[in-house]
Amino acid sequence: MSAVLYTSPVLDRWCKASGKDWAAYIGHPFVKGLSDGTLPEASFHHYLIQDYIFLVHFTRAWAMAVVKSESLEETKISATMVDTLINVEIQLHVETCKNIGISEERLFLAEESFENLAYTRFVIDAGLSGDFLDLMAALAPCVFGYGVIGAALEKTASSNTPYQEWIKAYASKDYQDLCDVLGSMVEKSALARLGDEPEKSPRWNALCKRFNTATRLEIGFWKMGLRGH
Amino acid sequence: MSAVLYTSPVLDRWCKASGKDWAAYIGHPFVKGLSDGTLPEASFHHYLIQDYIFLVHFTRAWAMAVVKSESLEETKISATMVDTLINVEIQLHVETCKNIGISEERLFLAEESFENLAYTRFVIDAGLSGDFLDLMAALAPCVFGYGVIGAALEKTASSNTPYQEWIKAYASKDYQDLCDVLGSMVEKSALARLGDEPEKSPRWNALCKRFNTATRLEIGFWKMGLRGH
Amino acid sequence: MSAVLYTSPVLDRWCKASGKDWAAYIGHPFVKGLSDGTLPEASFHHYLIQDYIFLVHFTRAWAMAVVKSESLEETKISATMVDTLINVEIQLHVETCKNIGISEERLFLAEESFENLAYTRFVIDAGLSGDFLDLMAALAPCVFGYGVIGAALEKTASSNTPYQEWIKAYASKDYQDLCDVLGSMVEKSALARLGDEPEKSPRWNALCKRFNTATRLEIGFWKMGLRGH
Amino acid sequence: MSAVLYTSPVLDRWCKASGKDWAAYIGHPFVKGLSDGTLPEASFHHYLIQDYIFLVHFTRAWAMAVVKSESLEETKISATMVDTLINVEIQLHVETCKNIGISEERLFLAEESFENLAYTRFVIDAGLSGDFLDLMAALAPCVFGYGVIGAALEKTASSNTPYQEWIKAYASKDYQDLCDVLGSMVEKSALARLGDEPEKSPRWNALCKRFNTATRLEIGFWKMGLRGH
Repeated sequence: MSAVLYTSPVLDRWCKASGKDWAAYIGHPFVKGLSDGTLPEASFHHYLIQDYIFLVHFTRAWAMAVVKSESLEETKISATMVDTLINVEIQLHVETCKNIGISEERLFLAEESFENLAYTRFVIDAGLSGDFLDLMAALAPCVFGYGVIGAALEKTASSNTPYQEWIKAYASKDYQDLCDVLGSMVEKSALARLGDEPEKSPRWNALCKRFNTATRLEIGFWKMGLRGH
Repeated sequence: MSAVLYTSPVLDRWCKASGKDWAAYIGHPFVKGLSDGTLPEASFHHYLIQDYIFLVHFTRAWAMAVVKSESLEETKISATMVDTLINVEIQLHVETCKNIGISEERLFLAEESFENLAYTRFVIDAGLSGDFLDLMAALAPCVFGYGVIGAALEKTASSNTPYQEWIKAYASKDYQDLCDVLGSMVEKSALARLGDEPEKSPRWNALCKRFNTATRLEIGFWKMGLRGH
Repeated sequence: MSAVLYTSPVLDRWCKASGKDWAAYIGHPFVKGLSDGTLPEASFHHYLIQDYIFLVHFTRAWAMAVVKSESLEETKISATMVDTLINVEIQLHVETCKNIGISEERLFLAEESFENLAYTRFVIDAGLSGDFLDLMAALAPCVFGYGVIGAALEKTASSNTPYQEWIKAYASKDYQDLCDVLGSMVEKSALARLGDEPEKSPRWNALCKRFNTATRLEIGFWKMGLRGH
Repeated sequence: MSAVLYTSPVLDRWCKASGKDWAAYIGHPFVKGLSDGTLPEASFHHYLIQDYIFLVHFTRAWAMAVVKSESLEETKISATMVDTLINVEIQLHVETCKNIGISEERLFLAEESFENLAYTRFVIDAGLSGDFLDLMAALAPCVFGYGVIGAALEKTASSNTPYQEWIKAYASKDYQDLCDVLGSMVEKSALARLGDEPEKSPRWNALCKRFNTATRLEIGFWKMGLRGH
């Protein structure tokens, strides 16, 4: 990873402003369990099932980004995310689940956990209440955090962990390149609304807070996964 | 009126940035007809009927402002606007219409003109696509323009014009005070998002453009009134 | 209370469809603690502080109802709710808190709990994703549940409970009358969209589910209160 | 074309309920000018330039459909529309324009006409104010009307008309198949909300009205094209 997270100084500062919470998210016991293989299978399965529901609402959140785009680049990239999440990613997710014995019907009938609901509705409301950049600050922890985790675990995970497939998906060049594209878009979106010194904008603290709340909701999501039901 | 329009330098600059269009709006032939009494009655009636429908959607636009508020003051003032528009203003409007022979049923059954529809949906979408300030820039020409017109016509209108009641409503201390309250809120909202030198923000041109489009849609609304059907 | 909850058969059926969860909500240990006075003060204070934040977002949810109204009655009643919540109720709330030693500043600086966030953002998203009736199904458990609890506790609560003021607020004729007005509006709104036999509409199960999720989020809110931090 | 428009009886009835306006839209002088080649080039160019801006906001409207989807099929199809419109269609549009001497820069700098603005913002607001089906009723006249026009002109247009490329695009198997897919989705979406006899739903008239308003806004769009500026 470059010195600046996914080419975006703004993103980098958001992570740093969330310091302790950001560290707790990317270094969560759930993540360690993925890395050394000690994560109970039931936790992983529960996580995968909830992540299916998450994907549907995350698609809706990126659709809000299309509604709120103010440049052709913002529209195009957000539209690609909408399509990829619901027409490609979710299919991969369904297949991954099927391979480990979770049927599509079970995914479809699963009840959304409150941690899941809290997270996705917070992100969607960030879009409804603010502008495109407010929405990006709420979407960022998921998108880029998974990139950071994938890249880190690729280097440090036990070769025997049963979760290598998950790790490889987020460590993949495809996913890391996507993070670069989105990081570059976030950076431009920030500069286009906050000016050349974003951290001096009166909006800066509110943006850091949105990013932080989403980061803490990610921690809640891992915790929900560990709980296993 | 003070040197600075309704105590808000930001508002003042938005008007100036719309120069020619702003002048065409506040000095429109429809306004001159109200002032000298030459506005055909049919035009005024058509305007009043459409304005009834306008009030309903303008209430919805201020409700979007409540959804998008980021301070308690923004929420409180926007909420008061929502309540006043639909629970007080519209009732006054219905009574004004009744007094000149337009029944409430006729108001209720009237078909929305395209100029009306274009204007209100543009304002609501400014709220959906942007943040609170983007919405304020789209709401401002109506709120403050009517204040400017009322104050001007009070001084210059013919004492015989049959439209004195309309003029007095917007020239009234109540309406002018409301404009001061809203001007002050718009100013604070702008500084809270753009910083101390709003016109140096990269968002400045887009905000001026939203204000300008709404101003031109006001001109369209007068034109629709003059057309008389 | 009449045989039919707040004059609305639709509302009545939503409660019954949520049977066990509805009972768990209105008969929650938190509610029993209010009734017999055993609720720890710290729990009540924590609840009041979170309820302040809840009120702000509940105002936003009712503003979404204004945006989505399809009749003048729906608009007017929803607008009154918006104004009352943020310009009257919240002030009473601030004074209640001040009287027991919680300053307005502490309310203002409090961090929103996840249970709180989950609930309000779910309700707002019910408005964004569905129509006016979908939003009503998500708003109903709070509005009417507090009416039911207030009315019940007025009869059964210990005269010594320190929470008599809270009980009286929701048992008051004002609040019970408000529930009747809103119940009547919900009923009309349902019939206007589902027809004369609402429970035969293909939307019925989804509406019951929205009501149920909000009911379970109310349970989560009480639990958060009991936790006391 | 089958007896039932694009396999959807609901769509078919919406068209019939708009009778005169629907006929005026699909048989507009602009359409006849495309067919016999008498449409002035300046009108066509003006139309193409405005259509570019239309595509951006139509993408936003379909993104609202993703936000409002209540089934996986609704989400997937709407997401595909979002991606196709902004990442494929708009590129074809830019190339078509370039071939006839309209640069991408000119497209980008064009000022949105009021007829264009009125139409797209009305559709987006149909999504904000109603549910998925309300949005479909507002999106339908554009999607299916162009299909009907394309199919009709393919049979009747002069072989010498300079607008054969435009006609072939909408008469193409690709576009006609898309209309079948969307017609089938609209039908299912209607039945899932209105029941087996949609026209007996109390919502039926409001849906017909949304469809009709969008149809009349299409007529306004052709008129704007003819005006040529």
